[in-house]
Amino acid sequence: MSFAKTPNPPYYAVIFTSKRTEIEEKEYGVVADQMVALASEQPGFLGVESAREEQGIGITVSYWSSLDSIKQWKKNVEHRMAQEKGKRDWYESFVTRISKVERDYSFKC
Amino acid sequence: MSFAKTPNPPYYAVIFTSKRTEIEEKEYGVVADQMVALASEQPGFLGVESAREEQGIGITVSYWSSLDSIKQWKKNVEHRMAQEKGKRDWYESFVTRISKVERDYSFKC
Repeated sequence: MSFAKTPNPPYYAVIFTSKRTEIEEKEYGVVADQMVALASEQPGFLGVESAREEQGIGITVSYWSSLDSIKQWKKNVEHRMAQEKGKRDWYESFVTRISKVERDYSFKC
Repeated sequence: MSFAKTPNPPYYAVIFTSKRTEIEEKEYGVVADQMVALASEQPGFLGVESAREEQGIGITVSYWSSLDSIKQWKKNVEHRMAQEKGKRDWYESFVTRISKVERDYSFKC
């Protein structure tokens, strides 16, 4: 995964920090990929960036044009099923933070 | 590294997404640790979360109480030296996004 190509601010970032359990690595990867594909079809989706440390935390930041597009994505039926499975099996713990990007700058991006 | 213990919103998040070059792995790790230690002594620092994929991107999110505390940290002399070294040697490319966290929720955190 690489850099998200976001427009000029303002836009929104959903910062999802998580710690995985040790179960069902394969299904988790499949569903995670499906959720990225599905998110990118949603209105207002701008991009996503993701990184996970072995045995540590993972951070996924998705970018959106509005709070409403984030709300719609949160309610998406397939996404809700993945969220439930996530809480039941895949995540030991997580934090989701909804933020408004006010400024950005890049180096050779 | 683990979850940042942030207060109730609003607060600020600096989302730093980067791609490393392949050089000076050891010095990079030392300086990265020093910068986390130094940042955590700054007024307004609330916490930091970080993850890096092998051969992929890294995401570091630092949390701050105000835009002014972010500005002061950006100007910090030792931090500026690390930023210069980062541009010269360690980062192929990066994006920095300054955002205001408006809402957060957690699961077993």
